[in-house]
Amino acid sequence: MITLHTWTTPNGRKPIILLEELGVPYEAVPVDIGNGEQFQSEFLKLSPNNKIPAIVDDEADGGPLSLFESGAILTYLADKYGKFLAPSGAARWQAMQWLHWQIGGLGPMLGQLGFFSKQDDAFALERFVTEGGRLLTVLDTQLSKSEYVAGDDYTIADIACYTWVMAASERLQEPLADALGKPNLQRWLALVGARPAVQKGMRWKPRG
Amino acid sequence: MITLHTWTTPNGRKPIILLEELGVPYEAVPVDIGNGEQFQSEFLKLSPNNKIPAIVDDEADGGPLSLFESGAILTYLADKYGKFLAPSGAARWQAMQWLHWQIGGLGPMLGQLGFFSKQDDAFALERFVTEGGRLLTVLDTQLSKSEYVAGDDYTIADIACYTWVMAASERLQEPLADALGKPNLQRWLALVGARPAVQKGMRWKPRG
Ligand SMILES: N[C@@H](CCC(=O)N[C@@H](CS)C(=O)NCC(=O)O)C(=O)O
Ligand SMILES: N[C@@H](CCC(=O)N[C@@H](CS)C(=O)NCC(=O)O)C(=O)O
Repeated sequence: MITLHTWTTPNGRKPIILLEELGVPYEAVPVDIGNGEQFQSEFLKLSPNNKIPAIVDDEADGGPLSLFESGAILTYLADKYGKFLAPSGAARWQAMQWLHWQIGGLGPMLGQLGFFSKQDDAFALERFVTEGGRLLTVLDTQLSKSEYVAGDDYTIADIACYTWVMAASERLQEPLADALGKPNLQRWLALVGARPAVQKGMRWKPRG
Repeated sequence: MITLHTWTTPNGRKPIILLEELGVPYEAVPVDIGNGEQFQSEFLKLSPNNKIPAIVDDEADGGPLSLFESGAILTYLADKYGKFLAPSGAARWQAMQWLHWQIGGLGPMLGQLGFFSKQDDAFALERFVTEGGRLLTVLDTQLSKSEYVAGDDYTIADIACYTWVMAASERLQEPLADALGKPNLQRWLALVGARPAVQKGMRWKPRG
């Protein structure tokens, strides 16, 4: 069984969406990062960088496996179940490059924009508005060339990008309106957003 | 033959180091990002996010492959040549999670710190000094538990982290002195820095 330590954030929703797509049983353990639960020593043993998501797969080949970083988790699960990431060839590396682009660019830059949009620092804010808009435009251009982020097929690169573009649509609509309104981005948001697993992941909430 | 489009930066040096470790022939094509060459249309066809590094492997399975994002490039080359990344099992995923940690955390945060260290914005500067120091401390703690970043073996996670810690040692020594001085980090810098391929990658310069 896979145990997923997660929360209601863009990175936290990615593995929920993938597990729902795969139809694999899992247990979601909420880690309330608004309440500092990511600093508890039991969680730090799984995720020494004090960030969700993290998984434990107690049926991994060679014994229980614990894993942090959403990009590594998506790749692990996609490879394990042989879906949403080609096993080799150009299709695999197309997906991998765009997954890394989300992890190293779109995610950190929109994250910083989210932070500075609540601070009194016009200079830094402008930097991340420009960078966030630029990255969304790169994505829109890519989506003008292909149906999904990495080509003709829906892959983990779509899952990784989707939760962040949605977070921007909800919370950074004003500074990013131009880029968010671009037609290919909008087409793709509707396409990916129509998937039941994606809807389930986006609605996920800790019980109680 | 592999063609590597790169420059003398932390992300640019990573694939040089790996190709030197592998002993694989390659041609390095300089892209002077100080001179705007990353915006030339020929380069944007390879790397639509206008960033180095990018590779073209004209002997890839199934035809020429072009690939951007240093983490995807390192993974592709390590898998292709079967070195510095285990093919499966816990060792593979340990390396993958730390590779993603560098791509999504250490790299962007030290990059922002580099930027704000040259600006007049004390608030943003403090944010990235704190975050950069925290990330280096996470790495030091990990290196107190194992010889290399992802365990007993030298992997692409070491290559990815090394170029960034070195850049911080050279250019951000003052704000990050405490974290950079930590003993496990220093031990590992010496260990990795003693490898001839690493030295070659760190010295690489465009000809002429
Ligand atoms: N690169 C990481 C980033 C993970 C991340 O930023 N997680 C956030 C929530 S979206 C978190 O746990 N923050 C809590 C903290 O930093 O203390 C990934 O993709 O998994
Ligand atoms: N996540 C990317 C980051 C690449 C990156 O930031 N490259 C920088 C140099 S280290 C660059 O090309 N900058 C030029 C620009 O942004 O215009 C990777 O790991 O490859």
